Amino acid sequence: MRVTLSTLDTSESSFTPLVVIELAPDVKEETKEWLKNKIIAKKKDGGAQLLFRPLLNKYEKETLGNQNLYLVGASTIRLLLGAEAVGLVKECADAAMRAFTYGTRHNFKGFHVRRLLTSGIVTQVFPLHDPEALKKLEDEWYTRFALKYQPIDSIRGYFGETIALYFGFLEYFTFALVPMAVIGLPYYLFVWEDYDKYVIFASFNLIWSTVILEVWKRGCASMAYRWGTLVMKRQFEEPRPGFHGVLGVNAVTGREEPLYSSYRRQLRIYLVSLPFVCLCLCLSLHVMMVYFDMEAWALGVHERSGAEWTGLLLYVPSIVYAVVIEVMNRLYRYAAEFLTSWENHRLESAYQNHLVLKVLVFNFLNCFASLFYIAFVLRDMKLLRQSLATLLITSQVLNQVVESLLPYWLQRKHCAQLKRKVRALKADVDTALYEQVLLEKEMGTYLGTFDDYLELFLQFGYVSLFSCVYPLAAAFAVLNNFTEVNSDALKMCRVFKRPFAEPSASIGVWQLAFETMSVISVVTNCALIGMSPQVNALFPESKTDLVLIVVAVEHALLALKFILAFAIPDKPRHIQMKLARLEFESLEALKQQQMKLVAESLKEESQEDGKEAT
Amino acid sequence: MRVTLSTLDTSESSFTPLVVIELAPDVKEETKEWLKNKIIAKKKDGGAQLLFRPLLNKYEKETLGNQNLYLVGASTIRLLLGAEAVGLVKECADAAMRAFTYGTRHNFKGFHVRRLLTSGIVTQVFPLHDPEALKKLEDEWYTRFALKYQPIDSIRGYFGETIALYFGFLEYFTFALVPMAVIGLPYYLFVWEDYDKYVIFASFNLIWSTVILEVWKRGCASMAYRWGTLVMKRQFEEPRPGFHGVLGVNAVTGREEPLYSSYRRQLRIYLVSLPFVCLCLCLSLHVMMVYFDMEAWALGVHERSGAEWTGLLLYVPSIVYAVVIEVMNRLYRYAAEFLTSWENHRLESAYQNHLVLKVLVFNFLNCFASLFYIAFVLRDMKLLRQSLATLLITSQVLNQVVESLLPYWLQRKHCAQLKRKVRALKADVDTALYEQVLLEKEMGTYLGTFDDYLELFLQFGYVSLFSCVYPLAAAFAVLNNFTEVNSDALKMCRVFKRPFAEPSASIGVWQLAFETMSVISVVTNCALIGMSPQVNALFPESKTDLVLIVVAVEHALLALKFILAFAIPDKPRHIQMKLARLEFESLEALKQQQMKLVAESLKEESQEDGKEAT
Repeated sequence: MRVTLSTLDTSESSFTPLVVIELAPDVKEETKEWLKNKIIAKKKDGGAQLLFRPLLNKYEKETLGNQNLYLVGASTIRLLLGAEAVGLVKECADAAMRAFTYGTRHNFKGFHVRRLLTSGIVTQVFPLHDPEALKKLEDEWYTRFALKYQPIDSIRGYFGETIALYFGFLEYFTFALVPMAVIGLPYYLFVWEDYDKYVIFASFNLIWSTVILEVWKRGCASMAYRWGTLVMKRQFEEPRPGFHGVLGVNAVTGREEPLYSSYRRQLRIYLVSLPFVCLCLCLSLHVMMVYFDMEAWALGVHERSGAEWTGLLLYVPSIVYAVVIEVMNRLYRYAAEFLTSWENHRLESAYQNHLVLKVLVFNFLNCFASLFYIAFVLRDMKLLRQSLATLLITSQVLNQVVESLLPYWLQRKHCAQLKRKVRALKADVDTALYEQVLLEKEMGTYLGTFDDYLELFLQFGYVSLFSCVYPLAAAFAVLNNFTEVNSDALKMCRVFKRPFAEPSASIGVWQLAFETMSVISVVTNCALIGMSPQVNALFPESKTDLVLIVVAVEHALLALKFILAFAIPDKPRHIQMKLARLEFESLEALKQQQMKLVAESLKEESQEDGKEAT
Repeated sequence: MRVTLSTLDTSESSFTPLVVIELAPDVKEETKEWLKNKIIAKKKDGGAQLLFRPLLNKYEKETLGNQNLYLVGASTIRLLLGAEAVGLVKECADAAMRAFTYGTRHNFKGFHVRRLLTSGIVTQVFPLHDPEALKKLEDEWYTRFALKYQPIDSIRGYFGETIALYFGFLEYFTFALVPMAVIGLPYYLFVWEDYDKYVIFASFNLIWSTVILEVWKRGCASMAYRWGTLVMKRQFEEPRPGFHGVLGVNAVTGREEPLYSSYRRQLRIYLVSLPFVCLCLCLSLHVMMVYFDMEAWALGVHERSGAEWTGLLLYVPSIVYAVVIEVMNRLYRYAAEFLTSWENHRLESAYQNHLVLKVLVFNFLNCFASLFYIAFVLRDMKLLRQSLATLLITSQVLNQVVESLLPYWLQRKHCAQLKRKVRALKADVDTALYEQVLLEKEMGTYLGTFDDYLELFLQFGYVSLFSCVYPLAAAFAVLNNFTEVNSDALKMCRVFKRPFAEPSASIGVWQLAFETMSVISVVTNCALIGMSPQVNALFPESKTDLVLIVVAVEHALLALKFILAFAIPDKPRHIQMKLARLEFESLEALKQQQMKLVAESLKEESQEDGKEAT
């Protein structure tokens, strides 16, 4: 018999350990009791109506440490109720229960875990991995090497919609890049430097990038519809944990919750955040100028000395600049998170949108400003190609190592150590759950899909912005993404604590970010083609004509992009029909409800009239 | 006592004559009987459940002609039921009944009046004016000359949302043009030809035109919310009268109606309509080239002869061209209507969108192509200013005379004649209703707001496309619109038959049309500024630098426009909140309904189980 069952199996037979809560070591017994009551109290009394157990029983507590670990679970009925409260709408109800199993995050918001976290009573809260389900998922996903689609629905079942959508997008994006990579290869192999071939390549790229982004929207809508998150309304989102304000009644749902005036939020955004972002952008540009000055200085020293060894000095500025970029990105990221949190957004989605906007404007400039400078001020295409290739490949290799492989290795080492330790201490009982909780407690926390999308976004920039200078970029991106799928999967399954599942209907603000990038890439590619010597040779007399023609072509391409985006519907037809049906039905239901109310009030009136008459 | 009452006041005391049906003179008695039964039959028997009376009683029929005029009316209860069927949702129900009074159009679709019209049995169907309400509306609206807002809510009450929105837009647009006109005036008075002042003017215009279009969306949403049409779903629209297809079940509403595959519609659009439109555009451009050839030929003849009288010949080409443009617009309009109708769109809104798109692409090219040619090929700014002014003012004056004043004058003459005639025939009874029906029967039919919006759209083009060449355009537009409000009001109240009221939530595809025009105007204005001699004088050495700077400014302005459009929410915050609340409530209602169904089915199951057990 397992120790876990002996500890947990009391009155409620269906206890499933879902979440681990770690309390600070110096928490008093009264606080523990209060927290326990809050969690197990019935919903109508303001509690979460969940089950609450210490990880260790009394006997074990005496022999082992870690006395402040608690397990929170739920009965099956409670899970169904939770699903109802989240407000998801599904076509069919068969898979519903499994889908909502990990939607319990919302229950925790109910008693302000974040406040407890901030005040230091609760050290951390995280859901437990489910070893059996995880093993099954891993087998389907990445352990057996084979060219196949990812099990997106299983990923969604285990990690939730947000993470499943990320992996879906990663896969889709990789497949979408394949045609670009295939068309780009011969340019590298046969050294096609004719302008007309480049023009064809660039035009194909631009149309293609528009089409793939539009088609993704449709695929994403299909997935979200299948998962029941497509019609999830933003207003049904609970306020995000960090949100604070004066307690009042939400005008939409009629529920009591903190309110914060949107006017004050706007003030904070436009008077503080916006100027700060602008300042950071100026600083980044300034650093870039310093880098180019350093480069010139290094070149000067090398030329003046004439010695061999000063040639090494030429690499110093770019290395220093790369490090500075990385450091600035990190620092800015923290500042952006602090500022966006301070803006006090009510919804997690609004918080995310503002954070994404801030971070990616800065990252875009920080990463690409030097490339723009080389392309359009220095006009050194060879240097551009070199630095583009170096930046792209280096960032991809570094990312995969730092993000997944290194932590995984550290994780394994730690795991082996811990196992030895636990077994040495207590060899007489089965210690699976105890070991698992201790191990996962020490794992890193997955901070959301933000960094993963950012990586893809910057990759898309490298591939599309200067595609006609370096057609091989798409091929490298495809190669990277094939391994990225596996390293990200490893990261999710083995390196990080299991994240709370988040429902979502789309990749949100990232769709807009990718679309904006593809618009910018039209402009840069047209400019690059216009600057190429082959095109310039066609207009030996008048540069002005050349510029005018390039501008005309650019406008035509932009117009084509917008017409394409407009002509391709965002949702597949069958999804549109089903949504229309749902809306029709829900409005009909509302109408019937109101009719009933009117009828009842009429009845009451007539009854009162009757009374008065008698 | 009025003859009307004696004829109509039988069993139903609340008969309100709403609609007149005129049958062909040779219609058989059986057909009349069938039609009458269709109209008065109960709803469950497939009828419209309305009241149906001949205009004249037996005695009058013998002495007067027009025996085939019938009045259709409704009882108050029927009107309420109709309102329910239309599916409008309103915040409060107090004004609801009045609002739906003229929504009875939908009832007529039920028994395919359009088919009867096509087959020649019914000559026409139109709602009657309500003399008292009309008089009141006129007094509020335009008869007393005073600077005041239009009574939009009263207009909406009498003519419906679509027409009220047109007048609302006309008024808003006029007020929005006032700042442009005020800023444009000093340019004309003090002959400011400095480039920097023009740049300021053009920049102001571009930002302003973006802002006014965005702010209109918000105002429009407020109005539509007040009227209860904002959340009206497109799927609730009945199929448009001309729509035909195989009878089937609508997948959204579950109602039986004709279905037509959208795939076949797409084929018709892309394989027939699109090539046809392109052909027409080419033809229009060809005619323009012929015009410029004629102009050159006339100039040549004049110069060769040297005589005075050949100077008149110079005006011939432009007059001929103007006439040809007008004729082509008309011919194309008919072709576009035929094609769009042949495309067989299910919804009136889809039909309108496709018609608008077709017509305004052609009208844009037809009206502005010669101006573009003068501006960017001939580069004759003086000629551009002249022809712009001539086109703008002439079209405005012509429009007002042909559209409203001339028909009104004809109408009044006809009215006086008719009154004399009727009074001479039958001086012994009051003939108000009889006279009214005969008079309105002969009035023109209002074909929708299409031509009115088109006029405003072309005006917006004249004002914004070349604003920096002719800053006075806005002032003329404002002057025109102040009188346009009155002449359009006159047209609606006195010249045309009362139109069937159409609910609508926005100005629809015209919003997009105006936005597209404002994007195009950024491009043209930047190009014009770049071409001006003052700006060229600043770059005496390099034209290329000039072009690059102009392009950069243009891109910055376009980016600014998109950011503005993105940053200004489409709906005011309080409307957003209310809509969210409505959606929340309707989904809650649906959920409760489904929960009830589940509970019932569970109960049944347990009962059956119980039976089996016993």
